[in-house]
Amino acid sequence: MEIMRVKDELVCTRRVEGLKAASLRVLESQAGKLLVATDPVGAPIGKWVITTSGSAARLAMPDVKIMTDLTICGIIDNWSE
Amino acid sequence: MEIMRVKDELVCTRRVEGLKAASLRVLESQAGKLLVATDPVGAPIGKWVITTSGSAARLAMPDVKIMTDLTICGIIDNWSE
Amino acid sequence: MEIMRVKDELVCTRRVEGLKAASLRVLESQAGKLLVATDPVGAPIGKWVITTSGSAARLAMPDVKIMTDLTICGIIDNWSE
Amino acid sequence: MEIMRVKDELVCTRRVEGLKAASLRVLESQAGKLLVATDPVGAPIGKWVITTSGSAARLAMPDVKIMTDLTICGIIDNWSE
Amino acid sequence: MEIMRVKDELVCTRRVEGLKAASLRVLESQAGKLLVATDPVGAPIGKWVITTSGSAARLAMPDVKIMTDLTICGIIDNWSE
Repeated sequence: MEIMRVKDELVCTRRVEGLKAASLRVLESQAGKLLVATDPVGAPIGKWVITTSGSAARLAMPDVKIMTDLTICGIIDNWSE
Repeated sequence: MEIMRVKDELVCTRRVEGLKAASLRVLESQAGKLLVATDPVGAPIGKWVITTSGSAARLAMPDVKIMTDLTICGIIDNWSE
Repeated sequence: MEIMRVKDELVCTRRVEGLKAASLRVLESQAGKLLVATDPVGAPIGKWVITTSGSAARLAMPDVKIMTDLTICGIIDNWSE
Repeated sequence: MEIMRVKDELVCTRRVEGLKAASLRVLESQAGKLLVATDPVGAPIGKWVITTSGSAARLAMPDVKIMTDLTICGIIDNWSE
Repeated sequence: MEIMRVKDELVCTRRVEGLKAASLRVLESQAGKLLVATDPVGAPIGKWVITTSGSAARLAMPDVKIMTDLTICGIIDNWSE
């Protein structure tokens, strides 16, 4: 899993059917890269989270048919940059 | 998912049977790398999109037998570089 | 597999159901990047370990339903940086 | 998919049984990295091609049991560096 | 597949059950990164090899249940750095 920070929500009205209405977050990686993840835990902006990728990202969703490749799977209790 | 910008269409006449007649787009990543994705949403050139990779890229296609590893899965409503 | 060093434990109370109570470790890659892995071998802090990623990370867990994408799969007997 | 250029053939006599007699090509990525791909389209040296990776690489082969992780899936009609 | 050089053997006594007694090699990538691969071909130290990753790494093993994510799948006949 990777350690990232929640930066923003992402509005994406026009999407493939397979993403359904999944909630999306913009994350910032440690290297400063912006990525988009599905968020089943409801992570607030500014929080440090761990993400899982690949096929595990789908399995981490309540609905495993959402075709994500990156999912927030936990909020870290204590993390300083 | 990654955030990329649609740069161009890609013409590729000689291709493996498994790609069928899938529509291909040249995308530019945030780091300036050029990649090729299948496009089931009809993303116009210049638009910012989110892409899903790996096995999820196939599941995001209407026909899951297209053997892509990168698919545009949504057009971002508002994005400034 | 990659060669990493165990840096710390990671406390993550709020997590997706699929991670269950899996023990998490913060690892440092050779390039100095911090990653989070599930740990079925009980690797002590400071030790050099090998990690497996992707779907293999799940198969390396005693419970293959844990939705990790990185698992410590061995402790290296002798390694100097 | 990634955009790469065919640089050479690769001779590899001693190989795992699962690679069978698959034809191998040395490719150069945009960043100048050399990679090896299976080639079901017969891409000539010097041509720009698109490649698919991961499990899609196997599905792009006529024989899906070839255990490649990178396959040339098309020859680009027109590409200038 | 990637092109790497065999650098050393790796001794790893304490390992997950799923790695069984698989023979491990330390490889050096073209960029100088050290990785660990399972070796079903018996590649001697110093040789240039090709490796396959992801789920293909398991399929390249005689026993597909070994949970590796990187396997040496061939020894290159002729390669100069």
